[in-house]
Amino acid sequence: MSRQPSSPTLLTGIGELVTFDPQHDGPLGLVRDAALLTVDGRIEWTGPASRAPRGDADREVDAGGAAVIPGFVDSHTHLVFGGDRSAEFEARMAGQPYSAGGIRSTVAATRAASDDELRNRLTRFTAELRAQGTTTFEVKSGYGLTVADEERALRVAGEVTTETTFLGAHVVPAEYADDAAAYVDLVVGPMLDACAPHARWIDVFCETGAFDPEQSRRILTAGAARGLGVRVHASQLGPGEGILLAVELDAAAVDHCTYLTDTDVEALAASGTVAGLLPGVEFSTRRPYPDARRLLDAGVRVALASDCNPGSSFTSSLAFCIAVAVRDMGMTVAEALRAATLGGAESLRRDDVGHLRRGARADYVVLDAPSYVHLAYRPGVPLVAQTVIGGA
Amino acid sequence: MSRQPSSPTLLTGIGELVTFDPQHDGPLGLVRDAALLTVDGRIEWTGPASRAPRGDADREVDAGGAAVIPGFVDSHTHLVFGGDRSAEFEARMAGQPYSAGGIRSTVAATRAASDDELRNRLTRFTAELRAQGTTTFEVKSGYGLTVADEERALRVAGEVTTETTFLGAHVVPAEYADDAAAYVDLVVGPMLDACAPHARWIDVFCETGAFDPEQSRRILTAGAARGLGVRVHASQLGPGEGILLAVELDAAAVDHCTYLTDTDVEALAASGTVAGLLPGVEFSTRRPYPDARRLLDAGVRVALASDCNPGSSFTSSLAFCIAVAVRDMGMTVAEALRAATLGGAESLRRDDVGHLRRGARADYVVLDAPSYVHLAYRPGVPLVAQTVIGGA
Repeated sequence: MSRQPSSPTLLTGIGELVTFDPQHDGPLGLVRDAALLTVDGRIEWTGPASRAPRGDADREVDAGGAAVIPGFVDSHTHLVFGGDRSAEFEARMAGQPYSAGGIRSTVAATRAASDDELRNRLTRFTAELRAQGTTTFEVKSGYGLTVADEERALRVAGEVTTETTFLGAHVVPAEYADDAAAYVDLVVGPMLDACAPHARWIDVFCETGAFDPEQSRRILTAGAARGLGVRVHASQLGPGEGILLAVELDAAAVDHCTYLTDTDVEALAASGTVAGLLPGVEFSTRRPYPDARRLLDAGVRVALASDCNPGSSFTSSLAFCIAVAVRDMGMTVAEALRAATLGGAESLRRDDVGHLRRGARADYVVLDAPSYVHLAYRPGVPLVAQTVIGGA
Repeated sequence: MSRQPSSPTLLTGIGELVTFDPQHDGPLGLVRDAALLTVDGRIEWTGPASRAPRGDADREVDAGGAAVIPGFVDSHTHLVFGGDRSAEFEARMAGQPYSAGGIRSTVAATRAASDDELRNRLTRFTAELRAQGTTTFEVKSGYGLTVADEERALRVAGEVTTETTFLGAHVVPAEYADDAAAYVDLVVGPMLDACAPHARWIDVFCETGAFDPEQSRRILTAGAARGLGVRVHASQLGPGEGILLAVELDAAAVDHCTYLTDTDVEALAASGTVAGLLPGVEFSTRRPYPDARRLLDAGVRVALASDCNPGSSFTSSLAFCIAVAVRDMGMTVAEALRAATLGGAESLRRDDVGHLRRGARADYVVLDAPSYVHLAYRPGVPLVAQTVIGGA
């Protein structure tokens, strides 16, 4: 994609502009026949092209009637890893069930990889994400599971994003299979010491086969005491206590939420915790989708994220996640778009991305389509004509 | 994408090559660490890179370990149309059912469009298909439904493909709503006269709400008498007699096959008719998917196609169709890849495309992935690094 200089630029000829600015139309803050002024990498003005402040721009670019949306915010990825699990995927599609234990094969491959291998792969993923319209993304550790390997994963992740998450508690590694308690001690002790300086967030996979609620509480509390924000993986494979734990700890996000109890939904609705839905997982593990409609109707804030990882969801396409969420999770296209942009930003407690209000980072996507609806209407078709980050 | 000259070219460094050549491994004719020699736009040789006939090539290109597959063959599209139905899509996703009647809105917009509008849009679709790895595609008329508009659609389609299909019997147009018999007379009379010279195939939408089996038989028989090959749309919205009619008439393809009886499956298995499955339709109309497993287990030949059209399936991505077929239709990745390449070619009764045996057209796709499995493993991610057609 081409990079634009960051001088004051007016993008005109926008057929449909999604801003999430309440001064514009409806829940999407929609403007038709719109223009957008960026100054110093920030949004300065949005509105009808006919009222654009042309004198403030050094240059003008014509979008040719295309739709423009905020860049996608992917609040859940696992992009630091080695190895390949396509054979496991093939076997699963031939009838093998998904189990969290598969994570261990990626752990072995990640430990064996050099720094440069991890870095080169992450650089490719970063380009892949951008080409698909993602302008902000979180990256978790969790395939190292030693002090050195977790710290290394976070250092590498920190080279491409500020949204780094320490997930030492992804799964109990094979060498601690008989002594999970000792592994939790390691996570909250030396591993947290090494990792906290490189992370913004702490996360735990709170699920049968991974970490139980008490282990999860201990790890998350220790991370929070070090100033890390709290995120939780919960209720992916069955109902559990993870969602209530996330709410109790004022987690920014609790992700998966595939199995929900009424108590879970009520607690989320009354909380500051965003429910992150990851339809790529259900797609790629052939499991039932989370019920986004139920969450939205209860007033829960929802994010859509890719969970891009080599085991359970190797998509990096938020457009694909939107299409699946609309078909199979009861979301409207507008709700799904919001969840993949503003919802992702809320999940990361960021107010500078995920929308195009004045002052936001000028992160936006020009679609090769006249409407954002095409993201679901044309599933699988690459519709990103240009991704702009910070106005460039 | 870059175009290569058509001088004898050896593509080496192929991590995984799918040929469908029985001299290579398994049902995919797989070669690892492979090379491929093209001469005069045709496949001259495939095999292990270590045994490549290097002396026969003017130049050598390194695929860098990528997987290479035959170009996709999309045996069912409706790409000559005007207008947009994203609003109808949005309404359907909010709970409105799909009905064949929606076709009429596209008919009105197509009639209103200029030749250049239709041509420009088709040119864009052609580029979009190629960018997604499709190297051969069929295009139907069916949004004109007057003698002049159907003939125009086929002329325009003929500019981009030899696989043109006369589908005057797509739906009874509004002006004949009270006299379908008169419309059938038109289709088999003046419309067929005008269209047959521009078409290779004739097709009918044999379904409640469109054309009944007797009307369908009359139209298809008339087309066959003019030398057109027979294709049928059948059993999309419910079970019907269309599949048996297709088999009776030795149709090359009967497409949709979403509702199957045991008799249908037995008849297909004993026939020369390919069952075309169009998962984009079920995805975008939120209906149950066809049971590919049942067909494959019975020995029916299966094609996967996009059905790209603005009403019921606006995807043009066969990679997306493969991913959905694997998740939701019981196909293995290998079966789905075969259906989207060789199966498409069988559906079009073409032996020069859909595979990379000696003498085939050098239509192939270099993936940005080490294995064809990634087409399903990485749903929604654009994985086509390069599409080569006729060696260029």
